[in-house]
Amino acid sequence: MRIDLENLDDLAQGCAVLGTGGGGDVEPAVAQVAAAVAAHGAVEVVDLDDLPDDLLVMPIAGWGAPTVAIEKLGSGREAQALRRVAERWHGGEVGALMAGEIGGGNGVAPVAFAASMGLPLVDADGMGRAFPEGPQVAMHVAGLPAAPAFLADEHGNVVTIEPVDGDWYERLARTITVAFGGSAWGADFVMTAAVARHATIRGSVSKTIAIGRARREAGVDGILAATGGVRLIDGKVVEVERRTTEGFARGHVLVAGTGADAGREIRLHVQNENLRATDGDRTLAVVPDLLTICDEATGTAIPTERVRYGQRVTVVAMPCDPLWRTPAGLAVAGPAAFGFPDVYRPIEELAGA
Amino acid sequence: MRIDLENLDDLAQGCAVLGTGGGGDVEPAVAQVAAAVAAHGAVEVVDLDDLPDDLLVMPIAGWGAPTVAIEKLGSGREAQALRRVAERWHGGEVGALMAGEIGGGNGVAPVAFAASMGLPLVDADGMGRAFPEGPQVAMHVAGLPAAPAFLADEHGNVVTIEPVDGDWYERLARTITVAFGGSAWGADFVMTAAVARHATIRGSVSKTIAIGRARREAGVDGILAATGGVRLIDGKVVEVERRTTEGFARGHVLVAGTGADAGREIRLHVQNENLRATDGDRTLAVVPDLLTICDEATGTAIPTERVRYGQRVTVVAMPCDPLWRTPAGLAVAGPAAFGFPDVYRPIEELAGA
Repeated sequence: MRIDLENLDDLAQGCAVLGTGGGGDVEPAVAQVAAAVAAHGAVEVVDLDDLPDDLLVMPIAGWGAPTVAIEKLGSGREAQALRRVAERWHGGEVGALMAGEIGGGNGVAPVAFAASMGLPLVDADGMGRAFPEGPQVAMHVAGLPAAPAFLADEHGNVVTIEPVDGDWYERLARTITVAFGGSAWGADFVMTAAVARHATIRGSVSKTIAIGRARREAGVDGILAATGGVRLIDGKVVEVERRTTEGFARGHVLVAGTGADAGREIRLHVQNENLRATDGDRTLAVVPDLLTICDEATGTAIPTERVRYGQRVTVVAMPCDPLWRTPAGLAVAGPAAFGFPDVYRPIEELAGA
Repeated sequence: MRIDLENLDDLAQGCAVLGTGGGGDVEPAVAQVAAAVAAHGAVEVVDLDDLPDDLLVMPIAGWGAPTVAIEKLGSGREAQALRRVAERWHGGEVGALMAGEIGGGNGVAPVAFAASMGLPLVDADGMGRAFPEGPQVAMHVAGLPAAPAFLADEHGNVVTIEPVDGDWYERLARTITVAFGGSAWGADFVMTAAVARHATIRGSVSKTIAIGRARREAGVDGILAATGGVRLIDGKVVEVERRTTEGFARGHVLVAGTGADAGREIRLHVQNENLRATDGDRTLAVVPDLLTICDEATGTAIPTERVRYGQRVTVVAMPCDPLWRTPAGLAVAGPAAFGFPDVYRPIEELAGA
């Protein structure tokens, strides 16, 4: 499979759905990828099984304000700089890139880097969705160390972080991101293909393209079919409360039902991503399952920063990758990790209840 | 030669003289070195000619508030962490430490690291004095790249900086220092012994110990004899104006002559270090030559942060290393580099005028 100008929009729309509101707007990333693909050709998507065992896979993700990062993307200089330091540190060859998170613009932008560097993209990612915090990646659950982590800016500055723990990693990475002007591109969990086979969410790029295609062909129904998701409500956004604290967009969105859903009201709890949906005291869906606000007419997923009063939407809940339902997965990305009181119950179970 | 509990105080007093007010207070560093030498034994001071060509020399210096850094020094963990990342990056063995600047506490503290790591200290440094800004080192004048630069804290966190230029180096290093809690230990210009022979101020450790010994034996006169310096004034501090801007202690000190100097007044212009002495319109001494405020009775050099109204002092001016009088040296550390209008004239010439 390849990513080219034909299926780029499907990828982007799929990324937006899996972004559950976060991961950065896909639109500026699409423009960058289109330019890079036009200049350098399509990007091959490879299965990890088809890569030599010891070839290095470099996950790449935006830090800071993702839209700023994507607008600064330009030359692909960041990824080249990251590749250079990663190869030096690990003493091996980077043979493929990987999206750190497939959700939102962070799932799209690595395609531009891959195109400009002539590297393939692996059919995998670190989350199978978007998550707000650093350790919420499959590689961490698999017990891999994040460090060394590499951060680069568009000038070609590179910083390598070897922190003593995850808190220091976050602190240093965020500080450096600010020094870089508010955004940076980072690579961490650089690993061999052999390791990546057992430490990533496999097949997520092709799945994402399939979700995007299904949306294009059948709107919200297509998304539900492609993801095994359920429709929580058709309705209207009647309240949006959002504040930026500790670097996160936190708040809630209230959707009042229309048509068959008239009289119901669903509240979405947001920390960059839509993390939990409640109807009064009842939890309808909760992380690590996915919650996405879609345009009712087209199924286009609406990122957190674009949710507005009065929008006609359908709220969709989708099952997460099975990894996140294991005890280890729930420990880092379950309801308690976000301060929610819920004992996790899968969306399939909650929807049937 | 070795540094042990016998000559440690001479080293420290010499460092204070060459610190020209800056480089950090020597006292906390002395306590740390004494503890490290007591625990691990004396530190050998080696000439660069006696080291194998390809052995790596690691310059080490404090970032941020040096006294904080020295108080946090403790375990020597920082230097071990710096050594580990430097050896990995450069693919060689660090065989000796070097003081990045011999002036002030920065000239003393590396002895503690050397003791705890069982490494020798080379009889050289990067300045032959203290200077306030990053690029004002002999290795820079010799055309060596500062990067990669390594920063570590007392927890064992390490960050490697590969900046595109010196401004980015300063910006990133200062930002990371703040994230580390206000101080850090850094290594940059890591180089082989063969390169260091032609890119450092040679003999500065033994010279510094000699200055300290001369002060102990003969006070200010001893300093003048050991450094080839001149006495600018004996007097009393009658005005101290100091403000912290852009991370520097800037201001001036006014010394009113006493005894034979009664009726004269000398103004010292300070940016961490004492950079220029004027008597009305006349410049008496200016960087890169050295200017130190000494206790009149003992010759003990007084660091910038301890200069107080009413102190009886002797202001001493001393010739800098010849490197700083070359066009390349003056370009980075001459009067113009600090915004002074002077055309540089050596202290020997100014004193004879």
